[in-house]
Amino acid sequence: MPGRSDSIPPFSFTLEGTEGSARAGTFLTPHGAVPTPAFMPVGTQGTVKTLTPDEVAALGGSMVLANTYHLFLRPGHDAVRELGGLHAFMRWDGPILTDSGGFQVFSLARINRVRDEGVEFQSHIDGSRHLFTPERVMEIQRALGADVVMAFDECPPGGADRDTVTRANHRTLLWLERCRDRFRALAEGSPGPDQALFPVLQGNVFDDLRLQQARDVLGMGEWVGLAIGGLSVGESKEDMWRTLEVMDGALPPGSPRYLMGVGYPADLLRAVARGCDLFDCVAPTRNARHGTVWIRDEGQVNLKHARFKLDTRALDPECDCYTCRRFDRAYLRHLSVAGEWLGHRLLTIHNLRFLVSMAGEARARILDGSFEGWTREWLERYEGSGAQDPVPGAA
Amino acid sequence: MPGRSDSIPPFSFTLEGTEGSARAGTFLTPHGAVPTPAFMPVGTQGTVKTLTPDEVAALGGSMVLANTYHLFLRPGHDAVRELGGLHAFMRWDGPILTDSGGFQVFSLARINRVRDEGVEFQSHIDGSRHLFTPERVMEIQRALGADVVMAFDECPPGGADRDTVTRANHRTLLWLERCRDRFRALAEGSPGPDQALFPVLQGNVFDDLRLQQARDVLGMGEWVGLAIGGLSVGESKEDMWRTLEVMDGALPPGSPRYLMGVGYPADLLRAVARGCDLFDCVAPTRNARHGTVWIRDEGQVNLKHARFKLDTRALDPECDCYTCRRFDRAYLRHLSVAGEWLGHRLLTIHNLRFLVSMAGEARARILDGSFEGWTREWLERYEGSGAQDPVPGAA
Repeated sequence: MPGRSDSIPPFSFTLEGTEGSARAGTFLTPHGAVPTPAFMPVGTQGTVKTLTPDEVAALGGSMVLANTYHLFLRPGHDAVRELGGLHAFMRWDGPILTDSGGFQVFSLARINRVRDEGVEFQSHIDGSRHLFTPERVMEIQRALGADVVMAFDECPPGGADRDTVTRANHRTLLWLERCRDRFRALAEGSPGPDQALFPVLQGNVFDDLRLQQARDVLGMGEWVGLAIGGLSVGESKEDMWRTLEVMDGALPPGSPRYLMGVGYPADLLRAVARGCDLFDCVAPTRNARHGTVWIRDEGQVNLKHARFKLDTRALDPECDCYTCRRFDRAYLRHLSVAGEWLGHRLLTIHNLRFLVSMAGEARARILDGSFEGWTREWLERYEGSGAQDPVPGAA
Repeated sequence: MPGRSDSIPPFSFTLEGTEGSARAGTFLTPHGAVPTPAFMPVGTQGTVKTLTPDEVAALGGSMVLANTYHLFLRPGHDAVRELGGLHAFMRWDGPILTDSGGFQVFSLARINRVRDEGVEFQSHIDGSRHLFTPERVMEIQRALGADVVMAFDECPPGGADRDTVTRANHRTLLWLERCRDRFRALAEGSPGPDQALFPVLQGNVFDDLRLQQARDVLGMGEWVGLAIGGLSVGESKEDMWRTLEVMDGALPPGSPRYLMGVGYPADLLRAVARGCDLFDCVAPTRNARHGTVWIRDEGQVNLKHARFKLDTRALDPECDCYTCRRFDRAYLRHLSVAGEWLGHRLLTIHNLRFLVSMAGEARARILDGSFEGWTREWLERYEGSGAQDPVPGAA
C-alpha cells in the first residue's frame, strides 16, 4: 500500500503473463499497485463491514470499493471532500474504486423516473428526492476522490428482453459520452491524472449486443480500464461463461477488465480463466454475517450446523488468516449461533482472505504456467469430485 | 497476562498502598495478576462484544467477566468443559470471573417460581425450562472453569422495602452456605485452589441490614474476595455512596472488593475513593453501540450529534487507544450514524480503554499519595465546573 508521491504517477496496466485467456498483470494507480487478478473488498459506506483498514491491508486487500450512492446520502460527498477525500476519511491510503451509484439507484432507492436526462429517486434512508445525471455522478465521484471512478450506466434487470437491453445499451452510451466530457472538464487544472474513468459495458447475455456495445465504447475514447456489467444478475452460469468468452475476444488486452459483482470462489476462478482481472462482491461479508464460510476442502459451509459444536479444528486448516490461526470452529460456531458481532467479523476476515489469497495464487499459477491444472484440481476439491464446469481451454 | 504454570499458584491479594479509603493492590489468580483498582470488561457470551481477546489485552484488560446464565444456555457448560474450559474456548489466558447467573435469571428470563430450593425459569432464547439451585450454579461454574466464581444470591429490585430486603438477605445466606459446601466438594481432588468463590453481600440501602449481612457472611468462611451486590439498581447516588462507606468500615482490608455493575467513569472513581477494587458494567460496550462515548474534557457525549460532522480531532486527544490514535471524530460519527459495526467496535475500544486506564491512573495516584487532588480535578474537568459530588475525605 505505497503512499501517494509528490508527482502523481500515471495509471498503467502491465500484462506480465498469460495462460490461455487467463491474465496476470499489475494495475498501477496513484495510490499504489494492484497485482491482478485481484478481489476488491467492498466498503459500501466507507468501511469494509466490521473491519479496520489495517485488517483489510493485513489480509492482503490492495484495492477497495466504496459506494457513491451511499456516501452521497451519508455523510454527503461535500463532507467527504472537506474532510480530505475518501482516502483520508476512511484512513485507507491504498487504491480505491467508487461505483457510479447506478446499481443502487435501480435496486435500493424508490425510482421516481428514468429518462435520458438521468434518474430521479428517493433515498432509502429518509425518502428525500434526488436526481442523478451522468454529470452529477462525475461531480460526486470527483468529490469523493477515488482512484477509479465508474461511468453512470443503465443495467437492465436479469431476464430483460432484447429490446430492453438494446435501449439500455443505447442510453448507457449516451450517458458515457456525457460522463466522459464532464470527467475531462473536472480534471482540467489537476496536477496529473489522479482519477481514471472506467466505462461499463452492458448487453446482458445477447452476444451481438455485447459485441456492438464493446465496439461503440472502445470507439468513444482511450480507456484506462473497462468494466463488464450486467452479469451476475440472475442469468445462467452457462450464459455468464459464454458472455465472458465473447468479451474476452472483443476487449483490448492492454486494459484491466473489472467483472462487476463476482463473486463466489469458484465463479471468480472461472472468470479469471476467461480473462477477467478485477472483481468485487458483497458475498464474503454478507455470508459471514449468516455464519456461511468457504473452506478449501469442504466448499461452502454453514458453521451454525450442530456438527461443528465440539469441532476444535481450525476453520480452514490451510488458511493463513487471523481467524484460522487463532480460533477453532467450535468457538466460531458459538459466536455465529449467539449472534455475536465478533463472529461476523472473524468470518469476514476469513472469507475475504479466502478470495484475496485465491486470486493471488491464481496469479502465481498463471505466471508459472500451471494455472490450468491447478484450477481443475482446486475446483474438484472445492466442489467435490463432480466439478460441473470444466475450465475453457482445459481440453 | 502470564500463563498458567504447572503448579497452580494460590490466590492472594496484596494491598500495596492506601489513601483515605482508596486502595491500590494486586489480586493474584491462577491465570495472572490483576492490579487494582481494575475495571473488568464484560464478555457476556464468552466474548467482549465486537472485540478479539487480543484487542482486550491490548487495551489493558487484565480480568474479564463472563456470564453463567448465557453460557449455560449457549453453548452449554458441558460443551465448554469438553472444549477445555472458558479460557481455552474464548482464547483468553488471563483471569476470568463468571457471575452466578442470578441477576440474569431475575432480569432476563421468565421466572416461574422462586423458592428456597432455587429458581425455576424459562430461557429467554427458546422458552426451555430450567432450575438453578446454589449447587447447580456451582457445578456449572466449575465446568466453565473461571478463576473467580460467584455465589448464587437473591438481589431484590431497586426500591424494595425493608421486609423484602430482609428476606432476600436471609435467602442469600442460606444459598451461600450451600454454594460453599458444593464448591468445596467439587474442588476436592483438584491439584490446587484453581477457583475462588466470592460471596455476594446484599442489603440494598439499609445500613443495618448491610452490616448484619456483612457479619453473617464473614462468619461463614474465609473468603478470597467479597462482592457488593444490590447497588446500581436504581437507588440514588447519595444512597450508593453512603452504603459504600458503611461497607468500607465493615469489610476486612485484606480481601479484594468487587462492586458489581459499576460503572460509569465518575461513579467508578467515587467508588474507588470509598474502598472498592474491582468493577464491571456493560456501559462501555452498550453505550458504544449507540454512539455514546466518554471524553476527558467533555464528559459523556453522543457522537451522532451534527456538530461532529466535520470534526477532524481525535475522539479524546489525551487517549492512547487505537481508535483515538487512528481515526477522527468525523469518521467515527459517520460510522455511528450509518449503523456500521466498525463504529460500535471502535467506540467500544475507546470506552473500555477509558475505564481501564482511568482505574490504572487511580492506582498510580493512590500509590504516590496524590489520589485525592487528582480525583477532584478529574471530576471537575469531566463533569464541568459544577462537580456535584465531592469525594469523601476531600475536605
